[in-house]
Amino acid sequence: MSPAQTKKGASRGFIIPIGGAEEKDENPVILEKFIEICGGNDARIVVIPTASRLRHTGSHYEEVFDELGAADVRSITVSSREDCEKDRVLKKIENATGVFITGGNQLRLSTIMGGTSLAKLLRKRNANGLHIGGTSAGAAIMPEHMIAGGETGPTPFKGQAILAPGLGLTNAVMIDQHFRERGRLGRLLSALAFNPFATGLGIDEDTAAFIGPDGVFEVVGSGAITVVDPANLKYSSIGEARRGEPVSLINVRLHILTSGSRFDTKTREPIIEFENAIFENA
Amino acid sequence: MSPAQTKKGASRGFIIPIGGAEEKDENPVILEKFIEICGGNDARIVVIPTASRLRHTGSHYEEVFDELGAADVRSITVSSREDCEKDRVLKKIENATGVFITGGNQLRLSTIMGGTSLAKLLRKRNANGLHIGGTSAGAAIMPEHMIAGGETGPTPFKGQAILAPGLGLTNAVMIDQHFRERGRLGRLLSALAFNPFATGLGIDEDTAAFIGPDGVFEVVGSGAITVVDPANLKYSSIGEARRGEPVSLINVRLHILTSGSRFDTKTREPIIEFENAIFENA
Repeated sequence: MSPAQTKKGASRGFIIPIGGAEEKDENPVILEKFIEICGGNDARIVVIPTASRLRHTGSHYEEVFDELGAADVRSITVSSREDCEKDRVLKKIENATGVFITGGNQLRLSTIMGGTSLAKLLRKRNANGLHIGGTSAGAAIMPEHMIAGGETGPTPFKGQAILAPGLGLTNAVMIDQHFRERGRLGRLLSALAFNPFATGLGIDEDTAAFIGPDGVFEVVGSGAITVVDPANLKYSSIGEARRGEPVSLINVRLHILTSGSRFDTKTREPIIEFENAIFENA
Repeated sequence: MSPAQTKKGASRGFIIPIGGAEEKDENPVILEKFIEICGGNDARIVVIPTASRLRHTGSHYEEVFDELGAADVRSITVSSREDCEKDRVLKKIENATGVFITGGNQLRLSTIMGGTSLAKLLRKRNANGLHIGGTSAGAAIMPEHMIAGGETGPTPFKGQAILAPGLGLTNAVMIDQHFRERGRLGRLLSALAFNPFATGLGIDEDTAAFIGPDGVFEVVGSGAITVVDPANLKYSSIGEARRGEPVSLINVRLHILTSGSRFDTKTREPIIEFENAIFENA
């Protein structure tokens, strides 16, 4: 489940979680940048629409990525665990430069793909250069520890976040999406309160983190990413609280990052380049 | 959080989850075997009583391990996240041949130790030879994905198991404890239903899995270990079910293993040595 190991001489691919509802027509900056990273006119994209129950989710993304100039785009049918073992499916992943996982229900993704050859191949290829983007449920599934569901509201209570094992592309962050739109700060805090080892990323709609091979991400899109860092947490009461009771957390660090901002998930520090800005305004 | 990497030439230590309430006086086969593996008369044991709120938990295990002939036994005070950064604590772990994590509340362990220098050192040293045993909450904390709580009963429903990130000594198994005594088959099944990548171990009281560096474990003690293997699962309905609704699971494999039985967590196969037994009875 954990990030696979990178072969000597190879480089990891990007991981690109999107907060859902990304712009697809007018000014699709996120999807444009995704195609650019995957090779632009040489990009070979596979769309995994498994999270969705809508019939046209896959073909809609096919059109969008075609429009953005990708060389080849295919949506694959993966609607059972047996599909995840088929050569036809695995070969397409082997030949892709980028994979895009659509929105829907992240538990459909984990129950259908978890532990299969497809899940293993996605981890292995991402560790060796395949870029993987995903929106909404497709973003939630990416980390080792996935927020599978929960309840709304700004302050955490016990039982607010439901965790499940995800795809394991990274274990440095936990991801929540539709963040501002669905008021999910409490649920992200309660997920981190269990075990404050990871950094939380709360990603707004039409906003993405482009997480590079070095663990540094840049924010792209019209909203913000709320970074919740419990590295220096002094105390979490979630062990003592009963279900439904509020949870106490002491010494959480918070950053709100908008388009162009960068953050290093390894050092857990924002990368600040203010000096130039100050001189320009002087 | 995931298992640390083993250095060249080194060998991983054992991981020894115990289902709680292990015999300590009359015929303490589990604790005896733990001390034997840790070096017998040369064993240097550190006890981590953090999960417990009882004052004498640590000193009780000190007495038991002394009685069993260990060279040196120390219970350490780790009751805050700051304690997990102290040199005094880290040095004791550096010098130990075995660490024992007592019972109590596994969320006390994850909230106090998670992400600290102590948690990182335990993973690193286990990857390079330190043996780590734990009972009840001390067993629950061991895997990457920890069963933090839940409700009783034999058949799974959505919301029955609460998952949280654990210590990450292994990601091959999920562990439940007091298994027969507290009727936890449903909760283990509902934990595995989220993402059927791991093997579930339901460990009875006074029973332990001695998981070796090769991923093979042997059962020791008076109860059984229920192995729940969803590797060939055809279908899980947990994505569709609502909270409280029963969950459908198709094609789960089950083994009940008693003392002396062995199971390979890598191939997910019991190791059967019946031939001799048959000839002996012939």
